[in-house]
Amino acid sequence: MPPASDLRSLRVDGARLMRRLAALGEIGPIEGGGNNRLALTDADKEGRDLVVTWMHDLGLAVGIDEIGNVVGTRAGRESGPPVMTGSHIDTVRTGGRYDGNLGVLAGLEVVEVLEGAGIITRRPLAVGFFTNEEGSRFQPDMMGSLTYVGGIPLEEALDVAAIDGPTVGDELVRIGYAGPLPCPGPAPAAFVELHIEQGPVLEARDTTIGAVEGVQGISWQELTIIGQSNHAGTTPISMRRDAGLAAAEIVTYLRRLADELGGHQVATVGRLDLHPDLVNVIPGRAVLTVDLRNTDPLLLADAEAALADFCEELERKQGVEIRSRSLARFDPVTFDPDTVLLVEKTAERLGYSVHRLPSGAGHDAQMMARVCPAAMVFTPSRGGISHNPAEHTDPEHLEAGANVLLQVLLELAEREEA
Amino acid sequence: MPPASDLRSLRVDGARLMRRLAALGEIGPIEGGGNNRLALTDADKEGRDLVVTWMHDLGLAVGIDEIGNVVGTRAGRESGPPVMTGSHIDTVRTGGRYDGNLGVLAGLEVVEVLEGAGIITRRPLAVGFFTNEEGSRFQPDMMGSLTYVGGIPLEEALDVAAIDGPTVGDELVRIGYAGPLPCPGPAPAAFVELHIEQGPVLEARDTTIGAVEGVQGISWQELTIIGQSNHAGTTPISMRRDAGLAAAEIVTYLRRLADELGGHQVATVGRLDLHPDLVNVIPGRAVLTVDLRNTDPLLLADAEAALADFCEELERKQGVEIRSRSLARFDPVTFDPDTVLLVEKTAERLGYSVHRLPSGAGHDAQMMARVCPAAMVFTPSRGGISHNPAEHTDPEHLEAGANVLLQVLLELAEREEA
Repeated sequence: MPPASDLRSLRVDGARLMRRLAALGEIGPIEGGGNNRLALTDADKEGRDLVVTWMHDLGLAVGIDEIGNVVGTRAGRESGPPVMTGSHIDTVRTGGRYDGNLGVLAGLEVVEVLEGAGIITRRPLAVGFFTNEEGSRFQPDMMGSLTYVGGIPLEEALDVAAIDGPTVGDELVRIGYAGPLPCPGPAPAAFVELHIEQGPVLEARDTTIGAVEGVQGISWQELTIIGQSNHAGTTPISMRRDAGLAAAEIVTYLRRLADELGGHQVATVGRLDLHPDLVNVIPGRAVLTVDLRNTDPLLLADAEAALADFCEELERKQGVEIRSRSLARFDPVTFDPDTVLLVEKTAERLGYSVHRLPSGAGHDAQMMARVCPAAMVFTPSRGGISHNPAEHTDPEHLEAGANVLLQVLLELAEREEA
Repeated sequence: MPPASDLRSLRVDGARLMRRLAALGEIGPIEGGGNNRLALTDADKEGRDLVVTWMHDLGLAVGIDEIGNVVGTRAGRESGPPVMTGSHIDTVRTGGRYDGNLGVLAGLEVVEVLEGAGIITRRPLAVGFFTNEEGSRFQPDMMGSLTYVGGIPLEEALDVAAIDGPTVGDELVRIGYAGPLPCPGPAPAAFVELHIEQGPVLEARDTTIGAVEGVQGISWQELTIIGQSNHAGTTPISMRRDAGLAAAEIVTYLRRLADELGGHQVATVGRLDLHPDLVNVIPGRAVLTVDLRNTDPLLLADAEAALADFCEELERKQGVEIRSRSLARFDPVTFDPDTVLLVEKTAERLGYSVHRLPSGAGHDAQMMARVCPAAMVFTPSRGGISHNPAEHTDPEHLEAGANVLLQVLLELAEREEA
C-alpha cells in the first residue's frame, strides 16, 4: 500500500479518456458530431455493450439490476459498501458526446489509473451507468437512479410506455439488460458524479471546475389567460380585455421577480401561444408556461406564491381570467456539505480554479443523495450549449474534471469509517 | 314636387329592410346564422344576382364596370353626378348578415321609399356595391372602390390571384360580372355609406347613431427578435438574451404608449411566436406583429417612431437584435366635415342619440373620399362583434340608421349646386 503522498500524485491519462469518449461517440452518430442513443434502443444497447466490455477488461465485477442499471465494482482492502461514481450513457435525440458519457468513462479511467499503479483502495470502488436518465423516450427522466433509491416502485417503472410504444420492461428484455440484481439496490458509502455543466457559468468565469452544491428545485406551470377577442381597430384601449397583454405582463413580472429574489432564482417563459393569432385581432386567449427554479425550497415556494398574487391582481386590473395548472414540481436537492467541500478543496489542491454553483439541470446524483452522501463535479460547457451536437468541453477541462474525480474518490475510499 | 317639410317626414320601412337583409342572408349560409360569400365565388354571384334583380324591380338603371362594381342609378330632376350610397355584399369566410349588406340594402330601401312617395330628387341618386371589399380571397381589400377612384390600375387589380388560384379577371368573366363601364368611374356629387360599427363604442355609450369622422390610419409591422436560446435551468438571469422577454417588453410598452397618446390611438399585438417553444428553453427568437392605428397621421408616425426608439433601447439593454418589416401602411382618412355635421344634425333632428367617432376598420367610403365629399353612418354592434355569425344589430337600430341615411341623401340630393 503506497503512502498517501503517492496516492495524491496520481493523475488520469487525458488522451485515454478522450479515446474512450470518441469510441462511444461513434455509436448512434448524428449530423454535427453528436449522438442519438435514446434509452433502450438498439443504439443504447450497442453503447451499453461497449462500456460493459471495457468494465470486464478492467477486471470489474459487472452487475445488472432489474431496471437495467449497470454497476462495475472493484474490490477494496476491506469489504462493505463501495464508494461509487457514474452517470448515464443514454442521450436525447440530438445529444452531444459528453453529457452523461463523461461521468461514466472518467470513472473507468479512474479504475484504469489504479490498475496501472497497482493500488487497491480501502473501500470497494464502483462505476455505474443508470437507465434512462434523459427521459426523452420514457417518462420520467432519471428513471434508473430514481428506481435504484426506491423513488418509484420497480413495477411502475417497468410498465412505462415509450413515446414509440413498447414498455421499459419489454425493451430491457429485448436488448438483454433486464438484470437479476434487486432494485432498489444497496446504498453506496458515497456517490460523486462528474458531469459537464450544460450552462454558461464556468466558461463565463473562466473557471475550470464547478463544485456543485445542489440541484435547483423546479416548478413548471401552464397558465391559461381568458380575455376577450375583439377587432384591433374598432375596440378602444379602455374596453379591451387583452389576454396577450396580460401574458406579457406576466413575462416581464417574472424577470423583475427573479431580479428581486436574486441568488439562484431563475424564471423562464419558454412557450407562449396567442389565439386567434391574427394581426388585427386582440388575443382572446393566451397559454404560456412558467419555469421557476431555486436551490432554496422556501424561496421557490415564495416565487410561486408571488406569481399567484400577481395573477390575481392582473385578473382584477385587466378583466381577464387566469387558470394555472402544475406541469411538474421537484423540491431542491442539497448535496452533502462535506463532500462538496472535498470537491472544492481537491480542485484547489490540484491547482484548478473552482467555483461553487447549483445545478440547473437534473442529474442521477440528486437521486443518490437520498441514500448516501453525494456531490458533483462540473466542467465548463462552451457557450453553455448542451443537448446539441455542438456540445463541447475542452480536452484539458475534461482531464481536469477526471483528475478531481480521481482524487475525490481516492480520498473517500481511503477514509476511516465515519 | 312636395315641400321640404314633407320630405323631412319621410321614413323607411324597417320590416321591408329586414326582409331584404334576411333574403340576402339565405345565400351562402354557414352555421350560426352567418354567411360565407367570399368575393367572386358562386355564392357572391348569387348574392349579386339577387341585388341586381331588386335594383331592376325598383326601376334603377344598372351599370357594371370593368372591376365588377355594380351601380343602380335613379334619375333626378336635373342631370349631373348623382348623390351616391352603397357598400359591399361580399363577406369574410365567417361573415355576419349586416357587414356591408346593410349599406347596400338600406340604399335600396331609400329608393323604394322615394318610389312609394312619388318623389324625384333634384340630383340623381345612385346605390352601388363594390367588388371584394373584404380582401379575404383577393388582396388588397376595398379593391373595387380603390380601383373605382383610380387608386390602383385596373389591369393590376384584374391580375390579382385568389388564395385558391384564379385571378380577379377570370372570376369576373366566369360569374358574368366583367362589365363594360370604364373603371376608374365618374366621381359622384357625394358619397354616404351606412355600416355597422363592428366595434363596441356605440353600444357601450347606449347610442343609436355614429357620425363617422374618418378612418384610422393603419401601420402593421412584423418584428423579429433574435436573442440566444439556452437552458432555462442552467443559464443565470444576468447571462440571458431572452427574445421572449424582449417581445413581452414591447407588448407592455405599446399599451403604455397608447395610454400616453390617448385619443384614438390603439396598439395591438395579435400574433406572437416563440422559438424553440419549449417549456425549459429560453426563447432564442420571437416574432410578433404590431398593429398601430390613429386618426391623426402625425400621431401615427409619432407612435411608429416611439416604437422604433424603444426597440433600439431594448437591443442595447437586453443584447437582442430586433428587425422590423412593414406589412401594411395606410394613412388616416378624414371625412368631409360638412357631410359629417349633416349626419350628426340629421340624427339629432330624428331624435336619435348620436356620437362622433372614427372608424377603426376600413370601408369603401374612405376610397370614395378621394374623389368627392364622403361620410359614414354607423349603427351599434352588439358586443362589438363582427366577422362572425354572432354579428348582431338590433332591428330598431338598423331602421334608425336607414332613416338617417334617407334624410341625409335627400338633403344632399336637394341641395343647390355648391
